[in-house]
Amino acid sequence: MLALHWDGQRLRLKRSYPTPQAAEHSALVRVHLAGICSTDLQIFRGYMGFQGVPGHEFVGEVSEGPADLVGKRVVGEINFACGACEACLRGLGRHCPNRQVMGILNADGSVAEYLAVPLVNLHIVPESASDDEAVFTEPLAAAFEIVEQVPLQPAAEVIVLGDGKLGQLCAQVLHLTGARVTAVGKHQDKLALLRKLGVHTVRLADWRPGRADLGVEATGSAAGLSLAIEAVRPRGTLVLKSTVAVPHPLSLAPLVINEVTVVGSRCGRFSPALRALAQRSVSVTPLIDKVYPLNQGLAAVERAAQPGARKVLLKASPKLV
Amino acid sequence: MLALHWDGQRLRLKRSYPTPQAAEHSALVRVHLAGICSTDLQIFRGYMGFQGVPGHEFVGEVSEGPADLVGKRVVGEINFACGACEACLRGLGRHCPNRQVMGILNADGSVAEYLAVPLVNLHIVPESASDDEAVFTEPLAAAFEIVEQVPLQPAAEVIVLGDGKLGQLCAQVLHLTGARVTAVGKHQDKLALLRKLGVHTVRLADWRPGRADLGVEATGSAAGLSLAIEAVRPRGTLVLKSTVAVPHPLSLAPLVINEVTVVGSRCGRFSPALRALAQRSVSVTPLIDKVYPLNQGLAAVERAAQPGARKVLLKASPKLV
Repeated sequence: MLALHWDGQRLRLKRSYPTPQAAEHSALVRVHLAGICSTDLQIFRGYMGFQGVPGHEFVGEVSEGPADLVGKRVVGEINFACGACEACLRGLGRHCPNRQVMGILNADGSVAEYLAVPLVNLHIVPESASDDEAVFTEPLAAAFEIVEQVPLQPAAEVIVLGDGKLGQLCAQVLHLTGARVTAVGKHQDKLALLRKLGVHTVRLADWRPGRADLGVEATGSAAGLSLAIEAVRPRGTLVLKSTVAVPHPLSLAPLVINEVTVVGSRCGRFSPALRALAQRSVSVTPLIDKVYPLNQGLAAVERAAQPGARKVLLKASPKLV
Repeated sequence: MLALHWDGQRLRLKRSYPTPQAAEHSALVRVHLAGICSTDLQIFRGYMGFQGVPGHEFVGEVSEGPADLVGKRVVGEINFACGACEACLRGLGRHCPNRQVMGILNADGSVAEYLAVPLVNLHIVPESASDDEAVFTEPLAAAFEIVEQVPLQPAAEVIVLGDGKLGQLCAQVLHLTGARVTAVGKHQDKLALLRKLGVHTVRLADWRPGRADLGVEATGSAAGLSLAIEAVRPRGTLVLKSTVAVPHPLSLAPLVINEVTVVGSRCGRFSPALRALAQRSVSVTPLIDKVYPLNQGLAAVERAAQPGARKVLLKASPKLV
């Protein structure tokens, strides 16, 4: 099959990469659309030491698996848990120490024609959500994860730092709770998308550190963290959504003095994200930058790495190209 | 009066520093004992840009103030709040943005013969607590602050990193909750103090990162933070008690991947600390290194800065020397 492949040094388009086998308790999924995320770009700089097919965002169709699933449109949670360890038994399979992670850790990902996914990870996509929408399930679930982790008062003042893809989704999800959300970013066009939805926006150049109850760091940059620390009131909460893998100079003394709570936040459950997409309570398609055919995968990654790029998608299935 | 004085460049013993005035709603306290803390040592390296009399740990006797307080033995909370702002009205005077902080921010501290303290900050010391014990009220309150901030299950596995003064107090306080506490440190003699109290101890050289529900970083070193991040299980909680003011290279990506909650923790309420001292449910006097007379204040600070030093105290009142 056609697939992008990262060998630890170089990203290549492979025209005859082995099609995965659907093992027991897994399904083979024919990928319709795959998304490129900032984590993928970090992987291409050596993050996680991953080798294989990248990609952990997709929507596709079950081509092999249990009869009642074949032909169904699906998305898939990215952590393949063992199901037997203490974390799994506590319902935290996303933190299973034995897990594989799709396109990130010991499991091939979605930037390919086909992908194998454990059955327990699959979710059927509601009919009212298009492929263009469903491909956002994974990052949207990561935004909903904030609300799973942090109890949020409806009267809360919330600051989201970063107007990129993840920042946009976080701002939308938090806006749904009734909290007063201010998005801070560098890009007028991106902030305009949020303003249309009723989110308050401020350009970074005009923003003054405030006293938010909750801050969300979604800039993807080392500098964003220091800004975010200043954004939150004493005894407030700061959620870290960016993984900035490279060590950078930082003093956490302001966190101690202000007794700020910092919550690391990663993947979320898919069901709230799928409900929100089905009900169109969030708006994701304006975040699409461009859809590339899979055989232009290298150009797609190059585009995704450009500053200010929105979500780059790959149309993987030849039937749909 | 006799006082130590930090002018931003040098620490000096002043023999005729102006005795403070007890303003309205304040008392003048004759200091019996003052303690030197790591924060003071950081101040002598420029932290907070403080100038004045250092020291925020003391026990003394009211010499001027309301008639019912004069002659009473007291300790004093260190944050002098305005009492009128939003933080104060929410009961968080310790985070008042207009606050002065004793010996740290715009207010003279306790390494002197006399000290002025707002009446609302004073607590009368129970008779059953000696001066040697009561002088630990402030750091002990900082240890109790952890329990105010973090709900702790009695079955929790707790790791305290650092066997210094604050680490010792944190381990003792957490041990009181019934949690299984393991203290990790470099000093056999200090770990032995905790073992006597029933706390499990491990030498740093023998310690392997674990899966604690709660980790407490009290090493006072930049390296301690990276260790502490490894000590905590996914979705666990890490409390930062050290203020490491100097920026140091750090990646918070592991916090995000493991969705760890980091809680900055500073000063605590005095009442639980005074109760614990009065009931002798904690043991503090073994932590005393040496008591110096105030006129040997410079030698005392030198001793306090030596690696492995326990709590250095200054006996300030000439009557008691």
